[in-house]
Amino acid sequence: MNIARLGNPGEEIPVLQHDGVSYDLRGLTADIDGAFLAGGGIARAGAALDAGELPVLAGAGDLRVGAPIARPGKIVCIGLNYRDHAEESGLAVPAEPVVFMKDPSTMVGPYDDVLIPRNSTKTDWEVELGVVIGTTARYLESPADALAHVAGYATSHDVSEREFQLERGGQWDKGKSCETFNPFGPALVPASEVPDPQALGLRLSVNGTTHQDGTTATMIFDVAHVIWYLSQFMVLHPGDVLNTGTPAGVALGIEGNPYLREGDVVSLEIDGLGRQEQKMVQA
Amino acid sequence: MNIARLGNPGEEIPVLQHDGVSYDLRGLTADIDGAFLAGGGIARAGAALDAGELPVLAGAGDLRVGAPIARPGKIVCIGLNYRDHAEESGLAVPAEPVVFMKDPSTMVGPYDDVLIPRNSTKTDWEVELGVVIGTTARYLESPADALAHVAGYATSHDVSEREFQLERGGQWDKGKSCETFNPFGPALVPASEVPDPQALGLRLSVNGTTHQDGTTATMIFDVAHVIWYLSQFMVLHPGDVLNTGTPAGVALGIEGNPYLREGDVVSLEIDGLGRQEQKMVQA
Repeated sequence: MNIARLGNPGEEIPVLQHDGVSYDLRGLTADIDGAFLAGGGIARAGAALDAGELPVLAGAGDLRVGAPIARPGKIVCIGLNYRDHAEESGLAVPAEPVVFMKDPSTMVGPYDDVLIPRNSTKTDWEVELGVVIGTTARYLESPADALAHVAGYATSHDVSEREFQLERGGQWDKGKSCETFNPFGPALVPASEVPDPQALGLRLSVNGTTHQDGTTATMIFDVAHVIWYLSQFMVLHPGDVLNTGTPAGVALGIEGNPYLREGDVVSLEIDGLGRQEQKMVQA
Repeated sequence: MNIARLGNPGEEIPVLQHDGVSYDLRGLTADIDGAFLAGGGIARAGAALDAGELPVLAGAGDLRVGAPIARPGKIVCIGLNYRDHAEESGLAVPAEPVVFMKDPSTMVGPYDDVLIPRNSTKTDWEVELGVVIGTTARYLESPADALAHVAGYATSHDVSEREFQLERGGQWDKGKSCETFNPFGPALVPASEVPDPQALGLRLSVNGTTHQDGTTATMIFDVAHVIWYLSQFMVLHPGDVLNTGTPAGVALGIEGNPYLREGDVVSLEIDGLGRQEQKMVQA
């Protein structure tokens, strides 16, 4: 089973999806947010399903798929977390995690259009394992404590503008926070349904040509290490999102740098977490 | 008149302060947030005051002063925006604004304790002009359009850990997002009450010794330019906060680098926006 949000932007209905059926969670919660996750909401939803207490949401298949969580408190990203991607970027393999942030308002649904920013010529793709925090993580003692703080996982697209990120002075955030730059979902898959977050294949294609085909097994810093590490520098709250880095195969690293253009279609998926598809549209 | 939030963390009461009296705004709004600001809330509150419709909040003087806005959607910071601070940091004066982000959950009240992070030896201060966005700013055509998008201004303390920021690999955000690292307030002063945001003195002292004494007149990129510039890279939403940079005089730039230690008391103020004071406490 997984958790999703269906409906127009700002009007999404929280649902539990199981065996192809969408069950309406509005009797349990107004939205899928930090309070729901921190309060054991996923377990309560599962128990309500088992008890036959959840109504089926009629017409769910006709609704837009939103991001599976409401706007997060923050989106924290790990840079250069796959050795092959650091190499293709011409940057050193980091000795400790590289941390940057994305504007939380960049989060959109997995099939929404992605806007190419005005004056952009280097809009690029990045498939990433997204992690949603379920309980507060602060100064964790060890990576062994970390995964207990995960509510679930989702496919995440960390869209990036390389000129804004790397050539316009200063810090990377400038090229990471453009409007629509974080498609997320289609679903939040509970941590209990992901036996090993370090054994997931990630793939991304543009107009049918595969560019990224990696596995979370080759992360430099694994999910548990990343959460433990971040908790030494900031408090991770329920509903916060982590983007854990991308494997090789982005336009920045490919001969000819085939950056995204209006009309391009990007498809991405992670094993067990679901598939996204976005059309690129000029902002 | 100005806007403030009084009460314990998470239970702050929105108030309008005028001539030393705090008026209860709960009849108008549950909180001071993006929706309140975007809906012309400050003007409505002022009109209600003029009409004698606002009840006085009894016992306001005994309440904690919170940050004057609810948790922002994002906090965007401009680095090295005063020439003398860029020079003391040993960094080049930027050709265009340097942009980074702070975790929005770092925002605390102006008199709350600031936590020195565990394993920190280089916690530093930065007094900054804080800007609160009132209406959505997206691809503004000119800096001349920018100030119309400002709801108001506040004193902001962009607390920074220099080792985490500069010596731990990668991006600055790592040293900017520690717990309690953004005291804000005591009040949100409406833009209509700040005739010129580029004519404000900023001062900061530690244990009574003045370290920063500057003016927003010497910003490299003024507030209007910063808002216009950011709107080319991201959407600024009502309730978002901008920290516009700090003048010279931080510990990083002072002989002997007198970084903050447990028990230190930091005081800061900006002309017309009010004063903060925090005690440093070990996390």
